[in-house]
Amino acid sequence: MKKMKRWKIKEVLRQGEEQDEVIIMGWVRTRRDSKGGFSFLEINDGSCLKNLQVIADHSIDSFDLISEKLHTGSCVGVTGELVQSPGKGQSVELQAKSIKVYGKADPDQYPLQKKHHSFEFLREIAHLRPRTNTFGAVMRVRNRLSYAIHNFFQGRGFVYLHTPIITTNDCEGAGEMFQVTTLDPGSIPMVGGKINYSQDFFGEKTGLTVSGQLEGEVYAMALSEIYTFGPTFRAENSNTSRHLSEFWMVEPEMAFYDLEDDMNLAEDFLRYLFKDVLEHCPEDLEFFNKQIDKTILARHQEIIDNKFERISYSEAVQLLEQSKKNFIYSVEWGSNLQSEHERYISEEVFKKPVIIYDYPEEIKPFYMKGNDDGKTVRAMDVLLPKLGEIIGGSQREDDYNVLINRMETKNLNSDDYHWYLDLRRFGSAPHAGFGLGFERLVQFVTGMENIRDVIPFPRTPKNARF
Amino acid sequence: MKKMKRWKIKEVLRQGEEQDEVIIMGWVRTRRDSKGGFSFLEINDGSCLKNLQVIADHSIDSFDLISEKLHTGSCVGVTGELVQSPGKGQSVELQAKSIKVYGKADPDQYPLQKKHHSFEFLREIAHLRPRTNTFGAVMRVRNRLSYAIHNFFQGRGFVYLHTPIITTNDCEGAGEMFQVTTLDPGSIPMVGGKINYSQDFFGEKTGLTVSGQLEGEVYAMALSEIYTFGPTFRAENSNTSRHLSEFWMVEPEMAFYDLEDDMNLAEDFLRYLFKDVLEHCPEDLEFFNKQIDKTILARHQEIIDNKFERISYSEAVQLLEQSKKNFIYSVEWGSNLQSEHERYISEEVFKKPVIIYDYPEEIKPFYMKGNDDGKTVRAMDVLLPKLGEIIGGSQREDDYNVLINRMETKNLNSDDYHWYLDLRRFGSAPHAGFGLGFERLVQFVTGMENIRDVIPFPRTPKNARF
Repeated sequence: MKKMKRWKIKEVLRQGEEQDEVIIMGWVRTRRDSKGGFSFLEINDGSCLKNLQVIADHSIDSFDLISEKLHTGSCVGVTGELVQSPGKGQSVELQAKSIKVYGKADPDQYPLQKKHHSFEFLREIAHLRPRTNTFGAVMRVRNRLSYAIHNFFQGRGFVYLHTPIITTNDCEGAGEMFQVTTLDPGSIPMVGGKINYSQDFFGEKTGLTVSGQLEGEVYAMALSEIYTFGPTFRAENSNTSRHLSEFWMVEPEMAFYDLEDDMNLAEDFLRYLFKDVLEHCPEDLEFFNKQIDKTILARHQEIIDNKFERISYSEAVQLLEQSKKNFIYSVEWGSNLQSEHERYISEEVFKKPVIIYDYPEEIKPFYMKGNDDGKTVRAMDVLLPKLGEIIGGSQREDDYNVLINRMETKNLNSDDYHWYLDLRRFGSAPHAGFGLGFERLVQFVTGMENIRDVIPFPRTPKNARF
Repeated sequence: MKKMKRWKIKEVLRQGEEQDEVIIMGWVRTRRDSKGGFSFLEINDGSCLKNLQVIADHSIDSFDLISEKLHTGSCVGVTGELVQSPGKGQSVELQAKSIKVYGKADPDQYPLQKKHHSFEFLREIAHLRPRTNTFGAVMRVRNRLSYAIHNFFQGRGFVYLHTPIITTNDCEGAGEMFQVTTLDPGSIPMVGGKINYSQDFFGEKTGLTVSGQLEGEVYAMALSEIYTFGPTFRAENSNTSRHLSEFWMVEPEMAFYDLEDDMNLAEDFLRYLFKDVLEHCPEDLEFFNKQIDKTILARHQEIIDNKFERISYSEAVQLLEQSKKNFIYSVEWGSNLQSEHERYISEEVFKKPVIIYDYPEEIKPFYMKGNDDGKTVRAMDVLLPKLGEIIGGSQREDDYNVLINRMETKNLNSDDYHWYLDLRRFGSAPHAGFGLGFERLVQFVTGMENIRDVIPFPRTPKNARF
């Protein structure tokens, strides 16, 4: 028997024309019964935000047998005729000829009944929340942004690189890392009062990567332009709406780029992503603009239409010192900018994205290239209004001797970085790169307040469920 | 000062025309001096396999100052005139007007001198091997295959899903997992003779994922068609040319697919990938066909041109029993097929890709859908000649009671899987999926014998360097 092709609801609604016979499959969002012997079913299959309305005449074959299984959450296949819909907001509706129930959802037990559910509650049922409008839309937007990232870099000839997840080095020289081991915690092998890692799986102490940058530099020094897009980890005990213990990061790294090239790329990149998602997810973005944050669409358009402001760290500190704001953290040259400072500059001073560059050397990692002033390094951060930092990057120190000195100042053991230093010993080149926290991007694009609501299964302190 | 745009060597060679002034940047692969006062430099920038030949007249500005820095491995920028090349195998060459040396490479110390290096040796310098022809080509092919995977699924409306890396569950019910922890191994907290995981970062025992399938099913039950493409881990002590401790896997999962749909998708998918890489990486594939394995191109074409053979596990066992081969492992109905068996069937019996389906229930995981015979499950493996299994998949058990029974038989605690079982309690649907080991695919496409040579930084027992 030749199987009939299933139509996705997105296709059905997009073509918008009458059809003698189509088959759709999906989940019942709501059911409403009319006195005239009809049931109206709203069906969603995740291919788009909108439901397809199905009209089931109670006289169709065996309706009485399936009727009790047709509830919110049930999974069905419907064969029927597509007709023009008299209702508002939909082009066509489906007049059922036959309905098959694949799986029911007992209304006394299924948690997603038609009513408002808080995001906190939905986090507790992270395995069911993709069946809601909000989380379906978040995941479609997340998907499109992921693809747009690949399209952007592939279009420019960058090579996608899978840097290692399990690693023996700590890129930042300061990150809090998860340990990866196969040692039995109940009987850790010791030698000379120390843990004997030679008996661990990799023969030494290993952890989860905090960044693929150092390995990215290896490949930039051979293939010129690369990018990573993979999971990274922080074992920080931060329970905030902006932190995850496991998150995805995009890290391009480019030979022959200086800091200005790096900033140009970052700006082109963000503008490309906003344009792309507006073009490909208009329905989902309108939903967010209506339900979550009424300023999203306007802000996206602003980013697309305007050049980013660029100011030095020293200028930023001046602006902050001159402002009349009461900041929680005070600012002076040499201190880290806090989220409140970054937001003040982008939201209140410039009212658009801002790139701050040339940060004090002391507050930045060892690998950033020094400026001639001897005080600052070629670092840059891209700040978005409402969100703060979304991208951090720098030109890298490409001089072997300078880098060795910097590592000494920062108390790093150069033996641990012999291969990284080799990149400066053999065929060194000016190069630069940046990192974009992917979930922060999805947060900004969707307007979702809590970062736990823009990743399928969030990992945070005391939570690795599902 | 406006910077001149750098040309990539790929662009220079592709356009193939004379140009008054271009600037290229890259690494010297070889240098040859002529008696007539010229040096010939072969420059590679990783954008393609081919080098660009640069001719440096020793009379150009300050050549005497830079000459001693121009060696294999040096990094240079060259401005000059593109002229038609009299030499074979190249359309144009660059007559240098000026050369800038970004970084030298002392010939007494740089390990990649012009001579043959074994892959074993190159693995020891994994931070420099991308600068060789072979590893440059591997990474360009790997990049293209990654992108083709996204293009394939995005073109069909699948949603890209990031399933968690850190997890509390073990998909296969039997995998050897790495543990992830922030407990100090020197002082593990105990309570009642057991490790007190409530003090660990996530409050319970966590490990690195062996598969994203279970979480993939969650999203297929909401968005219909999803795919993952992310790192997975096995803490198996296997030191073979086919095993990595950290590898990338692609796992599509589709609602409303039965096993036949699943096999059709797998076949379409592989054919698409082979077509795509042939079209986009012809130069690199010809290199592999010449240097690594002279049968690659012919085998790729075969896969593109022929339908895959499909036979049941029972038929496969019959073929093996009837064969005159001396297998190391004997075969009888109910036993696992070994690599030698799989290769015999695809290489010798059918001489093309083969899909084997309907495996004995006892040798397969709990989540596969049972057939009516009560003995077999709707599993399938795709076998490629020379490689063996590249894809494994199945239709999933979607009946709550059958699944519960299966879990009991396999001694699994259903409480650990409450959310997975909920997918069968609420709106269950027939669904199926498969997993493709990405590095195996890259191995097959490039002909590289050792899986450690198709991933940037391989992780294997006792090795997590770089």
